[in-house]
Amino acid sequence: MNGLTSFKRYQIAKVYRRDNPSKGRYREFYQCDFDIAGHFEKMGPDFEVIKILTELLNELDIGDYEVKLNHRKLLDGMLALCGVPQEKFRTICSSIDKLDKQTFEQIKQEMVEEKGLTEEIADKIGTFVRERGAPVELLSKLKQEGSKFLENSESELALNELEILFKSLEKSKCIDKVVFDLSLARGLDYYTGVIFEAVFKGAAQVGSIAAGGRYDNLIGMFGTKQVPAVGISLGIERVFAIMEQLQRDKDQDIRAAETEVLVCILGDDLSLAAELVTELWDAKMKAEFNVHKRVMKHIDRARESRIPWMVIIGDRELNEGVVKLKDVAASKEYEVPRSRLVEELQGRLNTFPL
Amino acid sequence: MNGLTSFKRYQIAKVYRRDNPSKGRYREFYQCDFDIAGHFEKMGPDFEVIKILTELLNELDIGDYEVKLNHRKLLDGMLALCGVPQEKFRTICSSIDKLDKQTFEQIKQEMVEEKGLTEEIADKIGTFVRERGAPVELLSKLKQEGSKFLENSESELALNELEILFKSLEKSKCIDKVVFDLSLARGLDYYTGVIFEAVFKGAAQVGSIAAGGRYDNLIGMFGTKQVPAVGISLGIERVFAIMEQLQRDKDQDIRAAETEVLVCILGDDLSLAAELVTELWDAKMKAEFNVHKRVMKHIDRARESRIPWMVIIGDRELNEGVVKLKDVAASKEYEVPRSRLVEELQGRLNTFPL
Repeated sequence: MNGLTSFKRYQIAKVYRRDNPSKGRYREFYQCDFDIAGHFEKMGPDFEVIKILTELLNELDIGDYEVKLNHRKLLDGMLALCGVPQEKFRTICSSIDKLDKQTFEQIKQEMVEEKGLTEEIADKIGTFVRERGAPVELLSKLKQEGSKFLENSESELALNELEILFKSLEKSKCIDKVVFDLSLARGLDYYTGVIFEAVFKGAAQVGSIAAGGRYDNLIGMFGTKQVPAVGISLGIERVFAIMEQLQRDKDQDIRAAETEVLVCILGDDLSLAAELVTELWDAKMKAEFNVHKRVMKHIDRARESRIPWMVIIGDRELNEGVVKLKDVAASKEYEVPRSRLVEELQGRLNTFPL
Repeated sequence: MNGLTSFKRYQIAKVYRRDNPSKGRYREFYQCDFDIAGHFEKMGPDFEVIKILTELLNELDIGDYEVKLNHRKLLDGMLALCGVPQEKFRTICSSIDKLDKQTFEQIKQEMVEEKGLTEEIADKIGTFVRERGAPVELLSKLKQEGSKFLENSESELALNELEILFKSLEKSKCIDKVVFDLSLARGLDYYTGVIFEAVFKGAAQVGSIAAGGRYDNLIGMFGTKQVPAVGISLGIERVFAIMEQLQRDKDQDIRAAETEVLVCILGDDLSLAAELVTELWDAKMKAEFNVHKRVMKHIDRARESRIPWMVIIGDRELNEGVVKLKDVAASKEYEVPRSRLVEELQGRLNTFPL
């Protein structure tokens, strides 16, 4: 709407959808988006977006995943080849899109009984959408079998684009995460090129965690110029759901804060807390402080906030130039010279699994 | 509104104010907030909020600053002591608040002619609000002079709180940034304890960059429970304004992106770009790629995006196993073995001032 013709941008923000809320599908939720809009080299932005998706999911380190990938024009070419009338492309796509949750027999029934395809056409679609595999291999198989694809200029273009993309992903060492899947349809109408969807292997209940594709005609619908674009969205809530499940699997409770150390002053001297916590903050430790006469108040606070270590100092420790370190979970205490507080804590914190 | 009684939170988001827009004062702007709400040790959260403010401003490293600090109850005690009727406290505070932009003579006129104080009372106020200085020293001076303060229980409480705060800031090694300033009033009504405001010394035109204070009665106005709280807001636009000015002063143009390296493929092989840029990304360099037959297209792109280094590779370089590194600003080229691309760039990037 501001007439920009080229940009790359990421954004983490709330998004909304008109939908009936169901388990794990909210109408208001957070999404992390990355998009590239503008005229660049052929398949360059598509490569970059998929590369970033794999970097992101690798970095999150929350389990093995695969990126299912297809091309809208290949899907259209396939439907044309099977004899589906063009006006039924979108509705048949949305049937195909259900293949991750339903059997082919179920969607065949839908295509024939509700959407009026013949059994023969539905079965032809069936032979295509069962094709999935390693990208380079499946692409070369399709091309060999393939004059049936190449008789359609749109499909030919799609196969050509996929070849460039796969070669780049191969050289960028992330193609092992990609599965070329002819049943991937993506519900939305606006996609015009590659489409993709990331799914965690061990967490079927969460469904897809990120999805996207090329949408060359969408910006022009709202702005004054047509600007080609490709992008990806990652659902933050779903990432959190997986992370929380992983924590539960490990029998680890989820901590509400990352605080590693609670500085506990037995007494009322806030300035002593300030002095000690400043040493820890300067050493980049995550520390809070608490000033109270009763030691149980400190222990309660550490337990409530699930803070793993306490630094305790009262009159005796102050006089003797020491501090007490308490490992809260193990209920063990260590007395160390106050001058070595930071080093002693650092050594112990490194062994604590966050 | 959700009945929470204790939390610490930060947030960077848009805020709005009903105000006539003027230079540097927008009605919609971004603000970075940090607040602590709940019952904690006396002055603990106040200390922490001011400490975080100084850490933040130190870390930003955009010039020398001072944190002006005062206490609402001390201000009220002072006004009572001078003989200002209680119903005029807030309107007189807003006159005092103008002392950073107007002379005392100007605000005296306002207090006498518009707000109906006697000249004598206004002059008494004048002797107080001229007091500013190093916190510990000024506090001790006020206490010595000070039975006049101590006859007011609110002022006594305020001086006691400031003593605890200053001692903690001293032990936390950030008190040298704080100026105790009896003329600081802060316009807003809801403050109930310490108030403070950070100002950059070299950038008077920007005014205050961050401000905050204790507001113990505000949450209760909206929720079901009274929850004491203290917090700070930092104006992001003002930080940016200072940063941009610093860049201009150094005659440095502002780069729209942090990209350090543009990988330039002379030809049409996207997968070669993918291979090289992946090496750079893996080494945590900020790199983009560009695929085009004409070298000028690459140079234009680097110049437009102000990318300092280009990695250029064409057929000759490919055959000879080398790449060309181009320092765009200096217009110098270096040929290096392709296998040493990352090391050669790393050595050169470290010397580039971002």
